[in-house]
Amino acid sequence: MTDRERPLEGLRVIDLTRALAGPYATLLLAGLGAEVIKIEDPRGGDLARENSPYVGRDGVTVERKHDDDVSISHLTRARGKLGVSLDLKQPEAREVFLDLVRTADIVVENFTAGTADRLGVGYEAAKAANPRVIYCSLSGFGATAPEGGKAMDIVIQALSGAMYASGGPGEPPVRIGIPIADMLAPVFSVIGILSALEQRHRTGIGQHIDVSMLGALTSFVAIENWSAMAAAGMQARTGLTVQRLSPFGVFECADGYIALVAVHEKLAQGLFRAMGQPELSNDPRFANRDSRVANAAVLEETINGWSRTQSVAAAVAELEAQGVPVAPVRHPEDALLDSRVVARHEAVPVAHPNYTSEIDLRTAGIPIVFSGAETGFDDVMPIAVGEHNDRVLTSTLGYSPERIAALRAKGVI
Amino acid sequence: MTDRERPLEGLRVIDLTRALAGPYATLLLAGLGAEVIKIEDPRGGDLARENSPYVGRDGVTVERKHDDDVSISHLTRARGKLGVSLDLKQPEAREVFLDLVRTADIVVENFTAGTADRLGVGYEAAKAANPRVIYCSLSGFGATAPEGGKAMDIVIQALSGAMYASGGPGEPPVRIGIPIADMLAPVFSVIGILSALEQRHRTGIGQHIDVSMLGALTSFVAIENWSAMAAAGMQARTGLTVQRLSPFGVFECADGYIALVAVHEKLAQGLFRAMGQPELSNDPRFANRDSRVANAAVLEETINGWSRTQSVAAAVAELEAQGVPVAPVRHPEDALLDSRVVARHEAVPVAHPNYTSEIDLRTAGIPIVFSGAETGFDDVMPIAVGEHNDRVLTSTLGYSPERIAALRAKGVI
Repeated sequence: MTDRERPLEGLRVIDLTRALAGPYATLLLAGLGAEVIKIEDPRGGDLARENSPYVGRDGVTVERKHDDDVSISHLTRARGKLGVSLDLKQPEAREVFLDLVRTADIVVENFTAGTADRLGVGYEAAKAANPRVIYCSLSGFGATAPEGGKAMDIVIQALSGAMYASGGPGEPPVRIGIPIADMLAPVFSVIGILSALEQRHRTGIGQHIDVSMLGALTSFVAIENWSAMAAAGMQARTGLTVQRLSPFGVFECADGYIALVAVHEKLAQGLFRAMGQPELSNDPRFANRDSRVANAAVLEETINGWSRTQSVAAAVAELEAQGVPVAPVRHPEDALLDSRVVARHEAVPVAHPNYTSEIDLRTAGIPIVFSGAETGFDDVMPIAVGEHNDRVLTSTLGYSPERIAALRAKGVI
Repeated sequence: MTDRERPLEGLRVIDLTRALAGPYATLLLAGLGAEVIKIEDPRGGDLARENSPYVGRDGVTVERKHDDDVSISHLTRARGKLGVSLDLKQPEAREVFLDLVRTADIVVENFTAGTADRLGVGYEAAKAANPRVIYCSLSGFGATAPEGGKAMDIVIQALSGAMYASGGPGEPPVRIGIPIADMLAPVFSVIGILSALEQRHRTGIGQHIDVSMLGALTSFVAIENWSAMAAAGMQARTGLTVQRLSPFGVFECADGYIALVAVHEKLAQGLFRAMGQPELSNDPRFANRDSRVANAAVLEETINGWSRTQSVAAAVAELEAQGVPVAPVRHPEDALLDSRVVARHEAVPVAHPNYTSEIDLRTAGIPIVFSGAETGFDDVMPIAVGEHNDRVLTSTLGYSPERIAALRAKGVI
């Protein structure tokens, strides 16, 4: 971190979140410069602390072996956050929470809808303590939805249409291999929080932000014109290739796969030259865009017939030389090492604060480059639950050592 | 729209974007209340205007039949935006652009990296005209990346690892059926813009925001612990189910598919009761979590043996009755009609301003509910390129009718 400031410097976030969706929202706020105080139950803390694999004294392990082994989920999601323990079922914990809210700009929670209010830490309680506070709730189906089943990522993927939209006609749906529903809701939560901050500059007061996992992912799905495409007789679910854009899609090589786009005339001719078959441009089946679309199946088989004889590297080089947009289908580990991604801190290394690991651990960075600001995480993280109790309760709240000791003795912190 | 204000009321955005990624960023800003002035080339405008299908006088059609037929891509992405035409290759257009920038808070562009500067409408030019302006560039690989191939969604999906991560071992990668790379970069762009606005409240000056499609999607992929899972011998790419969480995944019914999660003891027992086979809880192969993981393949086949005899509706009802998280794998058209999504305006109806359509067209809303603000789109949209030239050049810039006529005569607008 240089000495340039971060964009959200000076803002304080009280973080009641657990698991992935909520903690990713506050992770983004921390990386943008806000101070994040993560509240955890004194008995065990965030459940993500139990996610395998772990890292610690013995490197990366499937099971926790030592007290200071840390789940990599926690290690990546708790970066730059201060940790305070609070047993929210105790009334005195609620007082501590509200004292924190009085000093804060933002609160974020992702309890099941209704739970925060029942615990006395919902928006109404927070607003009464601090009318300027911006309070964000992330939930499966919305803050006022009747409580239902748990909104896990795979449930939301299924309900949103995202799972159906992937895969080919007649084939099963596809489970998207990244937790897209868990990740999108927090991104929209941050947009909501920052928009409310902008409004607060005009009005002086805060408000409640309510983002649903189902709504966030469904709004993405909704950008495609599903009903219009169906009405126009255009196939919406087409698997690895898309006939109406043919040749377009994923093709097989001897050692992997490539994605290519040769929709327009010039690109199709470039593809045929790369294949060493420039004469295909004159083949009446492939001579113009309409004929290529009409004969997409045989065209795709012709391309695969060539690409299967090529390595990924050779096919990419030959297509690039002809100006055809092409990319190798990369393994995530390779993607995270892309020199552009590394240089821009879009994926970043992470390590246990006390132990080195032979495994190069990398995780999500802040994928925004500012010309007049820095992004990144303070060198702080609650390895133990409540690790920063004394620091926060003393410096931020001005509690006396006696009061802190009493809270500790009662199991409030 | 009620008379409550929107969060970004009073901010003005000059929108140089085309296609999907950039226009989705300015669409979010418009739905949050900013005034967006979309600049298009007088000769044809945004290429998305040529995307099939269209809607107009004859309803939804694959080909454009009438002058006022509108691409549904344009209809959905241009909501709430004012349209001004500018031929940026002409020096006088650059003057008009800089006059607009002097009145604006935000500029957004998604030209190929380097193009905006070459046209004289890049950040340096904008900053010289208005040091307070926040200027956001969306590109494939970053604003300073050497120009390369076009960064289409499918190319970024391949490079990011997202495509590889989906699908099963030994199977081909999966093309995700929603344009996730095109959509994620704009969402992070909006976070960058709003963060820079917050910083501007402290410093009084703007800055350049630079977001890459590759970086945005790779940062999402990076949230999974790929190298640690590989080191721990855990399979990362597992298709419809996940062995280490078994039973977890997508299962086949007589008329479709369901997604279910029964990782924990209580849930597994609920699943077995729903299947009418409660005795499976005592089967040593399935009696505890470790044994279920070890025997995941046979367990999954046993579940499929039951679910294939059930309708989706029946299987969902039986599993819900037992408290097991479950969802139907829905078609996107059904997902967009979910009553919760409709009520929260996360997907919204859209129509040609002059014609009704028998097809119920729906598209992305703003998936954020504010307690103290409204979201939504002004009832304005540039059906024709340059539709709001007179309005903007007169009211916003105070140009005389003679000056506007001269610009029009020269083909500048």
